[in-house]
Amino acid sequence: MEKKPLILVTNDDGITAPGIRTLISVMNEIGDVVVIAPDSPQSGMGHAITLDSTIYCDAITIDDGEQLEYRCSGTPADCVKMAISEILNKKPDLCVSGINHGANSSINVIYSGTMSAAIEAGIEGIPAIGFSLLDYSWKANFEGLKKHIKKIALEVIKNGLPDGIVLNVNFPKLSSNNFKGIKICRQARANWVEEFDKRTNPQGKEYYWLTGRFVNLDKGEDNDVWALENDYISVVPVHFDLTAHHFIQKLNSWEL
Amino acid sequence: MEKKPLILVTNDDGITAPGIRTLISVMNEIGDVVVIAPDSPQSGMGHAITLDSTIYCDAITIDDGEQLEYRCSGTPADCVKMAISEILNKKPDLCVSGINHGANSSINVIYSGTMSAAIEAGIEGIPAIGFSLLDYSWKANFEGLKKHIKKIALEVIKNGLPDGIVLNVNFPKLSSNNFKGIKICRQARANWVEEFDKRTNPQGKEYYWLTGRFVNLDKGEDNDVWALENDYISVVPVHFDLTAHHFIQKLNSWEL
Repeated sequence: MEKKPLILVTNDDGITAPGIRTLISVMNEIGDVVVIAPDSPQSGMGHAITLDSTIYCDAITIDDGEQLEYRCSGTPADCVKMAISEILNKKPDLCVSGINHGANSSINVIYSGTMSAAIEAGIEGIPAIGFSLLDYSWKANFEGLKKHIKKIALEVIKNGLPDGIVLNVNFPKLSSNNFKGIKICRQARANWVEEFDKRTNPQGKEYYWLTGRFVNLDKGEDNDVWALENDYISVVPVHFDLTAHHFIQKLNSWEL
Repeated sequence: MEKKPLILVTNDDGITAPGIRTLISVMNEIGDVVVIAPDSPQSGMGHAITLDSTIYCDAITIDDGEQLEYRCSGTPADCVKMAISEILNKKPDLCVSGINHGANSSINVIYSGTMSAAIEAGIEGIPAIGFSLLDYSWKANFEGLKKHIKKIALEVIKNGLPDGIVLNVNFPKLSSNNFKGIKICRQARANWVEEFDKRTNPQGKEYYWLTGRFVNLDKGEDNDVWALENDYISVVPVHFDLTAHHFIQKLNSWEL
């Protein structure tokens, strides 16, 4: 009998979010699953790690699936570090993060707790995938995503991923499950234009809520925002060597 | 008379940290300075932004310098968003972040609040530089860094930076100020091996502190860790298009 792969599952919406519950059910079909996920929502946490505070991590049972589960008081990146260093007795064959309630296309990859968990796993040398759905609703319909997630996960287990690369997978929101297919993309060049919502608290002090408008000026048809707008599942290979290699030669000509 | 550049200063160690006070004093020699920095330490915050909580931002006077200052309850990335959207009435000519108490070389760029502020400014189209010193002490000696920081900042103002690129500048800890010079580098391929410190709280419940060992297997002499170990100031051009472009073609051959 072939040995089942060991799969680490995490997210940033918290361990009870419908997105991660769906992801766990898919992974149970593929391998032995261990879940270490935040005990509360951690959206927008980027690649934060907990340096100035303590971290709790407790075994927990949430449903009747075969997975082992732990809820952790840390960030998504903390969860992956905790899993590898303290919980698992061997390196997982795959780490999957999500399914995020909301897309992580374009520049959102930078702010995303979902992707930071996948990237953290990548840093630790584990093939990793972040999954997100372009639907912020807690009641989003994840059913139609299952077969695609399974296929992508199996391909990653089969082929592996090169050192230093993880996958960022985003699904469009479709009423039917008629995705046009999977498109390998680059990250769209887009950004948020902030619109702070300024209010006054009951004590008369001003405070703000961060809100914003997503502005995409990238007209390419090879980027992830285009793919999602055109009903494709986008897959972006993401790396964490942030060096802008092409600018090194030019910088050497500066008078520094 | 030539118009002075508008310079935004921030950090992740908090607005009263000796590192940012030094940076402010240098920038006052170059331009009109506005400081918007966290009201408390934010190390390890990565590119976190505040979505589920309110943000406060108050004018404050800390020393007798000419700068305007605001302390902000948000993350370093929040500070930059707040500055551009709410505080400044025009786009700054330069954003500098730091001087961080501790290096942000190699993979630390991912976890760094200092660099996330610089990257956020870069996303907003502002030339930006993160400065860090390989000395975690609150009493670190920043004096010898001043002339180098001024030179690098002036070069960035003069030359600009290409769209999508910011600079990550790290200084070695030297007892004298005899830096060997400035070296343009790539990000070293190194990572942290976690060593969680497990303890028991007074109520008998187990908890953890995140600690770790920095492991560098990168033998190149063109990376930032090598530069710092050899008494050079490292300058890495950093970009925030995380697409691993070289892997797109290969991914297209997968059975997805």
